[in-house]
Amino acid sequence: MNPKINFTPGPSQLYFTVEDHVRTAFRDGIPSLSHRSKQYEAIYKKAVDGLRELLGLPSNYHVLFTGSANEIWERIIQNLVEEKSLHLVNGSFSKRFFEIAQLLNKKPVKIEVPMGQGFNADVVRTGIEPGIELLGVTHNETSTGVCQPLEFIYTLRQQYPDVLLAVDAVSSLPYPDFDYSKVDSVFFSVQKGFGLPAGLGVWLVNDRCLAKAEQLLAKGISIGSFHSLPSLYTHAIKNQNPETPNVLGIYLLAQVIEDMVRRGITSIRKETEYKAALLYQALESHSDIKPFVQDKNLRSKTVIVADCGEHTEKITQRLLAKGMQPGDGYGSFKKTQLRFANFPTHSKEQYELLVDTLAN
Amino acid sequence: MNPKINFTPGPSQLYFTVEDHVRTAFRDGIPSLSHRSKQYEAIYKKAVDGLRELLGLPSNYHVLFTGSANEIWERIIQNLVEEKSLHLVNGSFSKRFFEIAQLLNKKPVKIEVPMGQGFNADVVRTGIEPGIELLGVTHNETSTGVCQPLEFIYTLRQQYPDVLLAVDAVSSLPYPDFDYSKVDSVFFSVQKGFGLPAGLGVWLVNDRCLAKAEQLLAKGISIGSFHSLPSLYTHAIKNQNPETPNVLGIYLLAQVIEDMVRRGITSIRKETEYKAALLYQALESHSDIKPFVQDKNLRSKTVIVADCGEHTEKITQRLLAKGMQPGDGYGSFKKTQLRFANFPTHSKEQYELLVDTLAN
Repeated sequence: MNPKINFTPGPSQLYFTVEDHVRTAFRDGIPSLSHRSKQYEAIYKKAVDGLRELLGLPSNYHVLFTGSANEIWERIIQNLVEEKSLHLVNGSFSKRFFEIAQLLNKKPVKIEVPMGQGFNADVVRTGIEPGIELLGVTHNETSTGVCQPLEFIYTLRQQYPDVLLAVDAVSSLPYPDFDYSKVDSVFFSVQKGFGLPAGLGVWLVNDRCLAKAEQLLAKGISIGSFHSLPSLYTHAIKNQNPETPNVLGIYLLAQVIEDMVRRGITSIRKETEYKAALLYQALESHSDIKPFVQDKNLRSKTVIVADCGEHTEKITQRLLAKGMQPGDGYGSFKKTQLRFANFPTHSKEQYELLVDTLAN
Repeated sequence: MNPKINFTPGPSQLYFTVEDHVRTAFRDGIPSLSHRSKQYEAIYKKAVDGLRELLGLPSNYHVLFTGSANEIWERIIQNLVEEKSLHLVNGSFSKRFFEIAQLLNKKPVKIEVPMGQGFNADVVRTGIEPGIELLGVTHNETSTGVCQPLEFIYTLRQQYPDVLLAVDAVSSLPYPDFDYSKVDSVFFSVQKGFGLPAGLGVWLVNDRCLAKAEQLLAKGISIGSFHSLPSLYTHAIKNQNPETPNVLGIYLLAQVIEDMVRRGITSIRKETEYKAALLYQALESHSDIKPFVQDKNLRSKTVIVADCGEHTEKITQRLLAKGMQPGDGYGSFKKTQLRFANFPTHSKEQYELLVDTLAN
């Protein structure tokens, strides 16, 4: 099977250096390395330090590892919500975060808009109900290609400074340049923008989150076990995990982050914007396709969704014939939309080929 | 760095075919494969079918994937215990299972014996306290090298047929030939006997476990979210996972299981016994070292622990000089014991070299 250029939004195309790093990992015995060794601690530290540098994380933030972003949803609810969270729901993944809070027997509430739409400050200006402890907002809805502007997220913080603000950046990081002092937790999984094999979630939390988890614990509420926030944290400060972690995954993350730091986050961000502009322009001017997200301010730069209607199958085949794998539309849009990941591994040349092929 | 022969009990030496399978995986685009594709479902099915064949799993058993064995401890308690579990504790890992039940606000009880010891049928013949829903027994204590005979485990089932019986086989499978009709759940992680990179737990459950989880759910008790037993099960029957899983890990597991089926589980078991006999004999006849576990019936075939006392450092250096990495003693035994994994990837020749080097 010939590997295609993979535009599916996750798992997506591997970052172009991953295969070399895997080879080195096996040569150096990384996959059978003890996770309690000094050598492993150095790998852990390299991943964390690299991420701090790449994203500009302040010192009151901590980097924690889980098995997936699904697990982070669960850990956020367990550790940061005694009773009530508020979720801004505008697609399948923001909805899932809300549902996980229900499954954990909390009493979450939601503000929901149709798929393809987003939120503006009005949605919460009139006030949210009392007792909300955490606000869950999805920076980039992978199911619809709606991306909330950072200013909107900061407005939430301004309006509700006492509410913890948890941001799902699963399919946008490392692109967004968050002001981490204006949010409390951000999380992602590695198989999207970082171009790594799936099986690792990365959870960024600040000291306010730790304090909240300790508060719940002091009240006798269970906040989970091996992956409770205090357990993850007390191991993290020793460059350790509570369990035997995905050692190879953390090693590869450290290596790819190093590559990205070297390339420069500014370049990565500029190229992301260039490629996104290229594709949106092509969609706007296309006779059979159009961008799904109407509001230009809400159009994601990293997951671009095209309404292809009855042309979906034809366009898919045309792309496949050129070695390009588009992502299916999500859920009920499976037959009428295509999704295109625009991650750091996707080159300008690949995007130019994509746009040219769509035009024909 | 020259890769050593790695006798640490986990992560341990990779199964000798893993590196080739990783190469094939990258060639075939497995790490960027969508986990919702038919191709992924075929990989999932291959892993499950292979495991059924290798272990002789009956049809009322289901194979589920988590991030680690730590996670399985948590999921067992969440899904199978309303209030009270009983744990047979004889080392750090059996103790941790008990502690996880405490952290999840259940009311576990334990029967504890010193490290290096095990249990015989007397321990429970006199009766266990009423209301115990689940009995947690560690087949093979990785921290001490104590292995409970299968007959002991079956005695528990005979005595307490209504209690769910969960068996930690993290560091023994695929060696033990369990009669799965006499237990309810067995679990392991892949970085030990299966010789794979860490980051995947495998949870085997029967229909009684599913029924218990549904019972708790019907009572309004939270049994977790994306990785609740019903959620894992409803995805598993479609060869799917609730979250984006460790796709590469599941692929490699499928491949290694296929290799093990081809080699024959009977051969693997016989070789394991041969190698264990070799090492125990060497320890028995050694002037400076002796087996830690006194009771020959309780000596593990897969994790062999040597009391080396003041000679620990000297022996470690001698082994390292010959390219062999022993495992440290666990916890307080770090400076006085060495642990040796005896997994399917460790060849007879490697064991003969180990024994010869110890003798000198």
